[in-house]
Amino acid sequence: MIVEPVKTHEGWYVLHDFRTIDWEKWENASGDIKEKTLKQFQELLGSWQETTDANYGDYAMFSIIGQKADILFMFMRPTMKELNQEERAFSRSLLGQFTKPAYSFVSIVEKSSYTVDYDNPYDDPEMRKKLFPLIPKDAYICFYPMSKLRGEIYNWFQMPREDRKRLMYEHIETAKPYTETVRRIITGATGLDDYEWGVSLFCDDPLQFKKLIYGTRFDEVSARYGVFGSFLVGYRLEPADIYDYFM
Amino acid sequence: MIVEPVKTHEGWYVLHDFRTIDWEKWENASGDIKEKTLKQFQELLGSWQETTDANYGDYAMFSIIGQKADILFMFMRPTMKELNQEERAFSRSLLGQFTKPAYSFVSIVEKSSYTVDYDNPYDDPEMRKKLFPLIPKDAYICFYPMSKLRGEIYNWFQMPREDRKRLMYEHIETAKPYTETVRRIITGATGLDDYEWGVSLFCDDPLQFKKLIYGTRFDEVSARYGVFGSFLVGYRLEPADIYDYFM
Amino acid sequence: MIVEPVKTHEGWYVLHDFRTIDWEKWENASGDIKEKTLKQFQELLGSWQETTDANYGDYAMFSIIGQKADILFMFMRPTMKELNQEERAFSRSLLGQFTKPAYSFVSIVEKSSYTVDYDNPYDDPEMRKKLFPLIPKDAYICFYPMSKLRGEIYNWFQMPREDRKRLMYEHIETAKPYTETVRRIITGATGLDDYEWGVSLFCDDPLQFKKLIYGTRFDEVSARYGVFGSFLVGYRLEPADIYDYFM
Amino acid sequence: MIVEPVKTHEGWYVLHDFRTIDWEKWENASGDIKEKTLKQFQELLGSWQETTDANYGDYAMFSIIGQKADILFMFMRPTMKELNQEERAFSRSLLGQFTKPAYSFVSIVEKSSYTVDYDNPYDDPEMRKKLFPLIPKDAYICFYPMSKLRGEIYNWFQMPREDRKRLMYEHIETAKPYTETVRRIITGATGLDDYEWGVSLFCDDPLQFKKLIYGTRFDEVSARYGVFGSFLVGYRLEPADIYDYFM
Amino acid sequence: MIVEPVKTHEGWYVLHDFRTIDWEKWENASGDIKEKTLKQFQELLGSWQETTDANYGDYAMFSIIGQKADILFMFMRPTMKELNQEERAFSRSLLGQFTKPAYSFVSIVEKSSYTVDYDNPYDDPEMRKKLFPLIPKDAYICFYPMSKLRGEIYNWFQMPREDRKRLMYEHIETAKPYTETVRRIITGATGLDDYEWGVSLFCDDPLQFKKLIYGTRFDEVSARYGVFGSFLVGYRLEPADIYDYFM
Repeated sequence: MIVEPVKTHEGWYVLHDFRTIDWEKWENASGDIKEKTLKQFQELLGSWQETTDANYGDYAMFSIIGQKADILFMFMRPTMKELNQEERAFSRSLLGQFTKPAYSFVSIVEKSSYTVDYDNPYDDPEMRKKLFPLIPKDAYICFYPMSKLRGEIYNWFQMPREDRKRLMYEHIETAKPYTETVRRIITGATGLDDYEWGVSLFCDDPLQFKKLIYGTRFDEVSARYGVFGSFLVGYRLEPADIYDYFM
Repeated sequence: MIVEPVKTHEGWYVLHDFRTIDWEKWENASGDIKEKTLKQFQELLGSWQETTDANYGDYAMFSIIGQKADILFMFMRPTMKELNQEERAFSRSLLGQFTKPAYSFVSIVEKSSYTVDYDNPYDDPEMRKKLFPLIPKDAYICFYPMSKLRGEIYNWFQMPREDRKRLMYEHIETAKPYTETVRRIITGATGLDDYEWGVSLFCDDPLQFKKLIYGTRFDEVSARYGVFGSFLVGYRLEPADIYDYFM
Repeated sequence: MIVEPVKTHEGWYVLHDFRTIDWEKWENASGDIKEKTLKQFQELLGSWQETTDANYGDYAMFSIIGQKADILFMFMRPTMKELNQEERAFSRSLLGQFTKPAYSFVSIVEKSSYTVDYDNPYDDPEMRKKLFPLIPKDAYICFYPMSKLRGEIYNWFQMPREDRKRLMYEHIETAKPYTETVRRIITGATGLDDYEWGVSLFCDDPLQFKKLIYGTRFDEVSARYGVFGSFLVGYRLEPADIYDYFM
Repeated sequence: MIVEPVKTHEGWYVLHDFRTIDWEKWENASGDIKEKTLKQFQELLGSWQETTDANYGDYAMFSIIGQKADILFMFMRPTMKELNQEERAFSRSLLGQFTKPAYSFVSIVEKSSYTVDYDNPYDDPEMRKKLFPLIPKDAYICFYPMSKLRGEIYNWFQMPREDRKRLMYEHIETAKPYTETVRRIITGATGLDDYEWGVSLFCDDPLQFKKLIYGTRFDEVSARYGVFGSFLVGYRLEPADIYDYFM
Repeated sequence: MIVEPVKTHEGWYVLHDFRTIDWEKWENASGDIKEKTLKQFQELLGSWQETTDANYGDYAMFSIIGQKADILFMFMRPTMKELNQEERAFSRSLLGQFTKPAYSFVSIVEKSSYTVDYDNPYDDPEMRKKLFPLIPKDAYICFYPMSKLRGEIYNWFQMPREDRKRLMYEHIETAKPYTETVRRIITGATGLDDYEWGVSLFCDDPLQFKKLIYGTRFDEVSARYGVFGSFLVGYRLEPADIYDYFM
């Protein structure tokens, strides 16, 4: 049985680039090396900010709690090749050489709709804002990848479109109390990475991540069909925080 | 079907930070370096104790049996950012540089109730003690993360609230013989880490961990719905034990 | 029950050889070493091009987005032994010593047909082109390994041939909109590597990978029977790009 | 449904401590260092033997076949803390610094019975021998951890006690032909490590391990409910073998 | 329900010892060291050949395609201890120090029969040849470990003997077209390693591995009950090839 997919529209490509800092190496570096490293890193941050200012993407930096990673760079760019260039720019930078890869996720900003059918979404200013968003400035991020279950009994991709639509509405209802406090960027990763979606939540109070995700876990689409990867939580680092963070 | 969640109240954020000691590096360090390292570590422990004394969280340190880790630091703090700062403070310390990450768990003290409905739990002194607890002083800890099954036949998050309530009561009954001897801190991790809960048990006799967990494994909620991660057992290290432990 | 297999014809052996670049080591190498390394690498690329020119296989090189790998070499050769020789030639080269293994996949170009029954496919020029293809010159590659489910309820290898044939037709129909834009090389790996097939897609616009794979995920053969490994996306590197890439 | 557990009695705590030898480092050490290392190791073995002689536990040492590990130390002690001390003593020893952790298992000698109900098993000399055993002196060991299945259809911990009892009797019957030739120490690990039991088999002829485990795999408790971890086989090393083994 | 096992007879113990070559270290070694290393390795090969000549086992060496490993040593010996000695001899040799462990499999040559019932198989010259075989001299090897499914619906070890016998006959029929071209050594590993069997196939044309394994995947015993580990393919290296391979 071929089931009707939902239409999706896509915007910027996104790379979540998680790194582990080699603190032993850092602590044993000389003061000169450290200064030079952070100065070069500030220049790199400056060039990324210029890209944002030119409305050609965005970036943000977070400090991750726990051992899964230390730093997260979230990049948005118009092409995959440009994502790869930023990734490589950091890897090759002096600071990059004090880090090791921890986890990454490759995806693209995605809007799907079970209701509205845009003729040309890229002409609609509201839609453009959603497809080419700025990363919210909240203090905390929660990132996790997810797929929909293709089990032998429950299989999302074999459900009729109307049933999926109903469950997605239910899910939107459950999440409604958090619409104001938790911002989100949903990215699609089918064919690009190992899960089908990436979810990036932003909030000043990280407890809201737990409240939102625990609350929605009882709706049918999450309870039955949600296949979740690792959850990573971090707080935002601004360029002005970097010196204090490392020195 | 949307199922009614249970209400939860949250207290301090918690980081379980497991480390492996690089004994080869330690044994090859000079006596001077070792002394300096332990002195600096005692200062760090002192600052953590001050935080506890200020009623601003707590910490404890354990030696883990087996190869999964050597040392566990358990931190409780009012914010995620402060947890991350303590984690980084240790990583960057001289002793931290003799260790490698082994496992970590990010969560928050959680009280859920299928019965009582608090209007303002944070005004209740008994409830405050549970949400902002001190880490019990027992000789041993047993930590494990767990989730509830979302199987294709048995799915905790699709069970009616009344059925979940009944099973949780059963579980409390089975665990009752251990109420006096085994203390516990339950932390919630949905949206914060890869399992939904962290369980930290404390007892002077580690055999009671086995008795408790084996005994409860036959009740329905554990037998059918318990999804367990790694079990890690350790004995408490006090600041006064550190010199003997390392020298 | 023995189910009738589908006949397959095979062409060149294929190695997908993913590598991670040790950028720290590279950045700390002297300019002389770097020049010498890239010069030797250009000679290796030249020898691989000669093999292609002699119609004795093909090769291509890609830069992979995200942390799963940095570089992919895709080799096609008449024998397994020759694949192994190219793999070793790179590992032992100066540039190879700046890389570490990330992932590899061993397979062979495969054409299977539920309809046409070739008497001697190797005499048919059209078929020869499919079995001994050149790697498409598109800007992007998407590679993923896959198997067919052998579940306790749904088991591809226990379905009658006619049913499998119907599902495969359905799949070809769903993929039809992408026939023009996305080129593909299907390779068989049963008995050669851990998945049963490797899928290599080529397109100038990597969004089409997502569109194609998301679109086909709703047809029965993908939704029910598709078991997917890691998805890796990269953009093509020509010999002329190498100097800029590394220097 | 709460199912009645079986009563268990416990004896010594047990650590299976598997290590990999860094042969490259060893082969490059000077003759002096090697002599000094083995001399210190003999002293450590001597102190462990004294503990055995004092009837305060036991230890044994094995050389593991295949790459999962090179050396296994099996320790039995009255407390977890003492297990941890022996583990650390070896890690910090000169020889320990030529090894890396490979795998470990933390458990406690366990006797469970579906029939006899001891009032005070610790007063019974026969029972004491089983709870505080010496490690058999056979030439070979086979160790594996295991759990009982908690599947959605077959769930050991939701079976009535009488049914479990019947299956366990069946299992004892199937294993009977090996009672004479294969000795065993069963240890419980629920709440202490990631599997529920550890099985340590001892025999002069390692083929009997295969015969026993293959034979019992067809009884219902193994076939349906056995969840097996890694199998590790080794031959016994006596202190007198050490010099030949390493030099 | 206790199901009747099939009788098995066993011959030589077998170790498949897969290694990764540290090419970076090798390429940076001096010519003198390389010569000395290969000379010592030739002596080791010579001693292994003497063991074969004495009809006390056999060995073979292969170069593995792809990144799972570089070199495979397959050893057959009368005892486990002797296998371990050969493994250690290589690890400690000069060439061994240029390699790292990649994967290993411990098993024993096994003949099982659902039909013939040998009274004393070790007296039968034909049976002896099967239990104590020489490793075939074909150009390629394909090795994979496998188990039989113990699923909640389909469970090999709970099927009546007659049904298993019928399925095994079917399997032998499907494999028949390859009897002449593909040689095989089946080894049993229950209780010795993590899968229940090891399959070593030998053929001059590695495409036949794919044809054989793909063809048999549609018979019921493979389709329903086959649980397959990693597939590793390599081509044979003779002592005379070693100098060219490494220099």
